[in-house]
Amino acid sequence: MRTTRKLRYFLIAAATAFTLPAVAQQQAPSDSVIIRKLYSEALTSTESYENLRYLTKRIGARLSGSPQAAAAVEWTRQVMQRLDLDTVYLQPVMVPHWVRGDKEIGRVYNSKMIGNADMNIAALGASVGTGKQGLSAEVVEVQNFEELEKLGKKKVKGKIVFFNRPFDNTHVQTMASYSGAVDQRGGGPVAAARLGAAGVLVRSMANELQDVPHTGNTRYEDGVTKIPAAAISTNDAERLSSLLKEDPNLKFYMRMTSEMLPDVLSYNVIGELKGTEKPDEIIAVGGHLDSWDLGEGAHDDGTGCMQSIEVLRLFKELGIKPKRTVRAVLFMNEENGLRGGIKYAEVAKAKGEKHVAAIESDAGGFTPRGFSMEGSNAQLAKLKAWKPMLEPYGLSEYGMGHGGSDIGPLKGQGSVALIGYRPDSQRYFDYHHTSIDVFENVNRREMQLGAAGMASLVYLISEYGL
Amino acid sequence: MRTTRKLRYFLIAAATAFTLPAVAQQQAPSDSVIIRKLYSEALTSTESYENLRYLTKRIGARLSGSPQAAAAVEWTRQVMQRLDLDTVYLQPVMVPHWVRGDKEIGRVYNSKMIGNADMNIAALGASVGTGKQGLSAEVVEVQNFEELEKLGKKKVKGKIVFFNRPFDNTHVQTMASYSGAVDQRGGGPVAAARLGAAGVLVRSMANELQDVPHTGNTRYEDGVTKIPAAAISTNDAERLSSLLKEDPNLKFYMRMTSEMLPDVLSYNVIGELKGTEKPDEIIAVGGHLDSWDLGEGAHDDGTGCMQSIEVLRLFKELGIKPKRTVRAVLFMNEENGLRGGIKYAEVAKAKGEKHVAAIESDAGGFTPRGFSMEGSNAQLAKLKAWKPMLEPYGLSEYGMGHGGSDIGPLKGQGSVALIGYRPDSQRYFDYHHTSIDVFENVNRREMQLGAAGMASLVYLISEYGL
Repeated sequence: MRTTRKLRYFLIAAATAFTLPAVAQQQAPSDSVIIRKLYSEALTSTESYENLRYLTKRIGARLSGSPQAAAAVEWTRQVMQRLDLDTVYLQPVMVPHWVRGDKEIGRVYNSKMIGNADMNIAALGASVGTGKQGLSAEVVEVQNFEELEKLGKKKVKGKIVFFNRPFDNTHVQTMASYSGAVDQRGGGPVAAARLGAAGVLVRSMANELQDVPHTGNTRYEDGVTKIPAAAISTNDAERLSSLLKEDPNLKFYMRMTSEMLPDVLSYNVIGELKGTEKPDEIIAVGGHLDSWDLGEGAHDDGTGCMQSIEVLRLFKELGIKPKRTVRAVLFMNEENGLRGGIKYAEVAKAKGEKHVAAIESDAGGFTPRGFSMEGSNAQLAKLKAWKPMLEPYGLSEYGMGHGGSDIGPLKGQGSVALIGYRPDSQRYFDYHHTSIDVFENVNRREMQLGAAGMASLVYLISEYGL
Repeated sequence: MRTTRKLRYFLIAAATAFTLPAVAQQQAPSDSVIIRKLYSEALTSTESYENLRYLTKRIGARLSGSPQAAAAVEWTRQVMQRLDLDTVYLQPVMVPHWVRGDKEIGRVYNSKMIGNADMNIAALGASVGTGKQGLSAEVVEVQNFEELEKLGKKKVKGKIVFFNRPFDNTHVQTMASYSGAVDQRGGGPVAAARLGAAGVLVRSMANELQDVPHTGNTRYEDGVTKIPAAAISTNDAERLSSLLKEDPNLKFYMRMTSEMLPDVLSYNVIGELKGTEKPDEIIAVGGHLDSWDLGEGAHDDGTGCMQSIEVLRLFKELGIKPKRTVRAVLFMNEENGLRGGIKYAEVAKAKGEKHVAAIESDAGGFTPRGFSMEGSNAQLAKLKAWKPMLEPYGLSEYGMGHGGSDIGPLKGQGSVALIGYRPDSQRYFDYHHTSIDVFENVNRREMQLGAAGMASLVYLISEYGL
């Protein structure tokens, strides 16, 4: 796209939806004006983006129980305190403390193979290690649990089970591709161990062929042997699969020193602006402060946390005094335990708090698309009634759907609506749970538009309830 | 975002707009089924993305008149020929041949300054050089033409005029920010030369503070001295501005050996599928094959070209025989002359061709947002009537607005509707006209969704007209 001739075309566009949003007719102008102010401030202040830089570059990865997670708690507490909110406090919660240990080794031993024998693997969260000597075994490849069952104990015993069902790329929403594959990562180790397997490899949860493995939590069950489990990069999953076709008896060596340590005291970090008219009605907006240990937890979920803090900063900066209480909650331990979310809901219940809505941003700091809701039809209708004011800012999708993991435990407390902020999903699984989920892969404006959208919705709910 | 607990939430979402698009009720199911097939094929074939890789990595930057532009013409001709279309041909057109010459030098001479004196500059397209000895002069900074006029000849004569008005970041659409700043680049040299200036520096057209300069075309006028003009990176524009505040008499040295050579013969590359029922009614879909010389012309506009070819490949692959003729047009010389677009319209007029619609993709290979149209209200209404079928794929914005530079000259030929494919604009000016407009910054799925959206619209127009 070019220069000067184009200008006259843009002037044609200037009166349309493709440039500045017009003030919506359906609502009092003052709401639209306030929303426009929220966007202008969000798009021109570098504060939330620079905060993300600090969180990702100066603190970095912050898996629950790590020193970096503790640093993130203290730093975000200070950031919110500097905003001069009505309350900033820490909510204690005991969290699991899993550590990856040494960098994992994955290697193929195959007499017929020429070339690189090393494979990129990463221990799955919660996984036991292999012992320092590592594990060497033959590999059986399956696409799903049915295939595994058909193989039976005889063919699985002592082997490494390799779950290699790829993402279905025909889905428009990558979350749907993820949902269709992630059972392998969550349930693979238990299913394989029941048949006597020695270990598990799971194809990384990604749309692309990549060299980086994608970690993520797995789970064990009482009474089933805990066997070591690792993600393998999609490129190496493809390679391993071809090598197995050449030589079904090849051996795979994996070495992981990961282990689960005793629980650690950590915190949800909470900041609050008291409502001027209905202070007992709470709107929570949040993300999760913990992250996986491989990257910097930028899109997952540094952006969600910095956006949530930004909502409060925008209110303060613009002098907006919400009628209902607005609370930013940075949840601890979403990735491997959800203890923070559970604790938050427990405390809310014990205190008899009334949440009108809880909004979570935990799908990356990408360009906005809309909101998904777990709530009543009446609540969804109310949300959709605001669409004319928000659509000019790229928020065009409103439907029933996932609210958020951390806010999930609030479900059923009164009539709370759980709302997921939905950015565009196309790039999410390029970075998700990898070493490349880093600051450089977050676009400033995309993240800021998300914060402004969340702030706009919080503002509308604070004015009119939900 | 995490694992296993989340799965049940995704299942809730599975019945909603956030996962697979439902078949729209408003249209015959067969159209929705065909559109779904177009998307499934586009999202699972790597052909267009690998084609982009070849164009960007093996051919690279392809400014009009360059050997690489010639290579791009021949290669895309071969690519389309392999698709077994009804016709593939080259349409000759003479194009300007501007060359950048040596890497530019920009340097500040300031007795008070400590630190790096080098500044990142890039000659603007069409600019004359400085001569090999370079140009050294004092600098006057202005924000706009009014400020320049106020300075007058006395203060401008012999100086380098530094146009430093930044993008207005409050715009939601970055195209609007661009439109509000690009007059400096297009009109700066003539305005400055009229007051006797010796050279021009223009702040790069970018939303972000960056080190890379953004080139782009400028223009001269007969009877006004042609003075050398360069873009300066936004970071260095900020730095130069502060240095000028310290020392208004600092000198800037710029050296550019750019020059305009005689016109060169080049081509638009055209491939066609003949319509089965109304072969005389033409739907053109295109992008521009030339690019600036600094990067690889990935988003601008390799993606638009590869998407346009992909539209034809999708039709062939799925055995869709369009009722009206579908033509992919890869225009030459959009960036610095628009000769290809003008030639295409001239030839169409001379031949008495009837274009129903022309669709251009020249706003980057980003995630889809919608379409903008230069056409009648009735045509826009018809386009909007298809929204229910296209919205589930992220195409939610439909309005009057810019069609496309290359298709612009077709305006007024019969009732042709000019349609711009509109991807998300947030990241466009991070890369636009720079050394970092490279393959690595294009996401496969975002580009593919665009191609599928364009193919879907072409299919609907081929069935129902416009």
